[in-house]
Amino acid sequence: MSTPPSSVPRPALAAALERLRDAHPLVHCMTNSVVREITANVLLAAGAAPAMIDHPDESGAFARLASGLLINVGNPTGEQLEGMRAAIDAAQRAGTPWVLDPVAVGGLALRTEFATTVLADGPAAVRGNASEISALAGAGAGGRGVDTTDAVADAEPAARDLARRTGGVVAVSGPEDLIVSAERTTWLASGAPMLQLVIGTGCSLGALTAAYLGAARTAGADPHDAVVAAHAHIGVAGTLAARTASGPGSFATAWLDALHSLTADDLIALSEARES
Amino acid sequence: MSTPPSSVPRPALAAALERLRDAHPLVHCMTNSVVREITANVLLAAGAAPAMIDHPDESGAFARLASGLLINVGNPTGEQLEGMRAAIDAAQRAGTPWVLDPVAVGGLALRTEFATTVLADGPAAVRGNASEISALAGAGAGGRGVDTTDAVADAEPAARDLARRTGGVVAVSGPEDLIVSAERTTWLASGAPMLQLVIGTGCSLGALTAAYLGAARTAGADPHDAVVAAHAHIGVAGTLAARTASGPGSFATAWLDALHSLTADDLIALSEARES
Amino acid sequence: MSTPPSSVPRPALAAALERLRDAHPLVHCMTNSVVREITANVLLAAGAAPAMIDHPDESGAFARLASGLLINVGNPTGEQLEGMRAAIDAAQRAGTPWVLDPVAVGGLALRTEFATTVLADGPAAVRGNASEISALAGAGAGGRGVDTTDAVADAEPAARDLARRTGGVVAVSGPEDLIVSAERTTWLASGAPMLQLVIGTGCSLGALTAAYLGAARTAGADPHDAVVAAHAHIGVAGTLAARTASGPGSFATAWLDALHSLTADDLIALSEARES
Repeated sequence: MSTPPSSVPRPALAAALERLRDAHPLVHCMTNSVVREITANVLLAAGAAPAMIDHPDESGAFARLASGLLINVGNPTGEQLEGMRAAIDAAQRAGTPWVLDPVAVGGLALRTEFATTVLADGPAAVRGNASEISALAGAGAGGRGVDTTDAVADAEPAARDLARRTGGVVAVSGPEDLIVSAERTTWLASGAPMLQLVIGTGCSLGALTAAYLGAARTAGADPHDAVVAAHAHIGVAGTLAARTASGPGSFATAWLDALHSLTADDLIALSEARES
Repeated sequence: MSTPPSSVPRPALAAALERLRDAHPLVHCMTNSVVREITANVLLAAGAAPAMIDHPDESGAFARLASGLLINVGNPTGEQLEGMRAAIDAAQRAGTPWVLDPVAVGGLALRTEFATTVLADGPAAVRGNASEISALAGAGAGGRGVDTTDAVADAEPAARDLARRTGGVVAVSGPEDLIVSAERTTWLASGAPMLQLVIGTGCSLGALTAAYLGAARTAGADPHDAVVAAHAHIGVAGTLAARTASGPGSFATAWLDALHSLTADDLIALSEARES
Repeated sequence: MSTPPSSVPRPALAAALERLRDAHPLVHCMTNSVVREITANVLLAAGAAPAMIDHPDESGAFARLASGLLINVGNPTGEQLEGMRAAIDAAQRAGTPWVLDPVAVGGLALRTEFATTVLADGPAAVRGNASEISALAGAGAGGRGVDTTDAVADAEPAARDLARRTGGVVAVSGPEDLIVSAERTTWLASGAPMLQLVIGTGCSLGALTAAYLGAARTAGADPHDAVVAAHAHIGVAGTLAARTASGPGSFATAWLDALHSLTADDLIALSEARES
């Protein structure tokens, strides 16, 4: 594989992975009920620790002590939305980095209003597909559920707008991932098509992003590199899993194995990052 | 394998599978919290697209744009039951075919009353085990949870009664599946005993039934054939998985692989359908 | 392997396993939304039957007819907590043995108050890690989520106190498990480190404990032996799975296979129990 034209310091990926596995960051996941188990298993396999705490009487206290917080608005309940508000408030006060995953925002009013409102509370990262990021920025109509209907490149202005408004990192997932922050733009190529056939691979990426951000914060490392590393970790494990999988069931199993076993060398050799 | 005495047109199974994979129908799943992940993975593997949307402020809007809707009353919450009513209303108005899975109806008052009430809203299909179908028709006391305690054949009059009252297709799952509609009765033999040792295989069948019905509706195809094809898809994948499985864990993995890889030839060769 | 200095009758483990598989006990699981699917699959693989029924209008009726009840307070909703109270009341009246799993008690006020209150309702078993058991007994501050921060041995006085107050069996999970009841103390060595990298292995142990207690009650067998057998079943399946696993994904698959296939000989050969 030829050297990619990357200005993401390649050692940065290796350092981020090492930090994650050393820090074993505790991630407070407030996520949809479809993917809670796979999200927890992804965090455990990758080197972090998950805890799902949704009740409004508990979520604030937990967000204060967690290393990172995930807010994923897929299939929310009324009680969980209350809990999310409490957790975001607490995370803000405590400085816990939090990630917003705007699942199906644009197409559904309740979550669209919620996600739009909490943007003002400074998420450290926003992660979604092109149609979700466009809709969240007010620039698109949203997709049908979790599908993406816009090309990633079309969402670049929306991502840039959200990065400016939140002061955080914005990631658009797709065949190539786009990661944008105030001063940097990274295109990342990694992954495998089979990732689309396993539920929760995207939602788990949101959780792993919170884990990497938590580990970066403790170390004073660059959040932009942390978000790139999370995407590479998910994608490269997919590339490794695709080598042996016979279908989506065996792929999911091999992907969890690879999230655990992959090395910094894998991360660098099997992803291509370029800054534009 | 000898030719089964089938009056289900064998090309109908092949055509239904092709339609599913071409149409990639979006299925709105309102299902119990135990099986949401496996249900989504089954739909993705089989060729459809899942979305779980339960909140009453969102479920109506989504049911209007989905290709099919699943209402599975296993372990409902109060908020989800409200959401189900909104979704069923919207599906009726929009013509979205919806499937009722009366999990453990008969034994538990809340869900029994709900399922009995929504029968009047014209489900395109009802799918359950023998004791659930009997109880829903008012002819039995229900089983203990998801177990079936009655033989499939004993539930035939109840299935016929429900088909008449709803104008839809009624399917009774068991060692052989019975599929009944106004003018047809099909017995389908397919599957593997190990399917009973993996949670959500029956619930996923309800979701896949909604997917096949959605694809059939767009094409103006026969809903009865669609329901038969959904059952054959689940069952034949089980037969294929059983060839390599060492237990319920490896069976579940191989079953997801087979749901994805099976061909129309597999569907025909490994199931036997006869009309009575 | 040398004969362990056990006063747990070795035939007791074999008898407990046989009873479980003969009785196929129905376990009413009220557990957190992260682990419902894996918990159901563990019960099915091991030889029991799961049903998740959380709504307060249904949980009492179901707890009366179930063989055992699990109350796991990880990530509760308000409605589920109401349902748990109804189920515990019904279980008490009907004599259904119920198990309390005090997930993350100590660190979070809502569940800590709930778990402390229902202790008075006579759980047949309490199962947790060292920090949870200590916190529940009022002797510790709790851990960070599901992690254990105290050594198992340090929790022995707390376990003994809880056993005295509840009249039941108290189990502390860790590198070696400690099982305490009024007149007996058992240390059990079994398991594999990889169990920590799969979500729900501990929570499933709580559910399997309820299954073994249900089977023991019908047979008039010793509840202490039932709790030991549940722990050995989970742990020995882990030992078997670790022989072939390449990581947490393939481990989870092999573990489910082993829960199903393991024999009484495996249970005895691969665990060491001693009474102190």
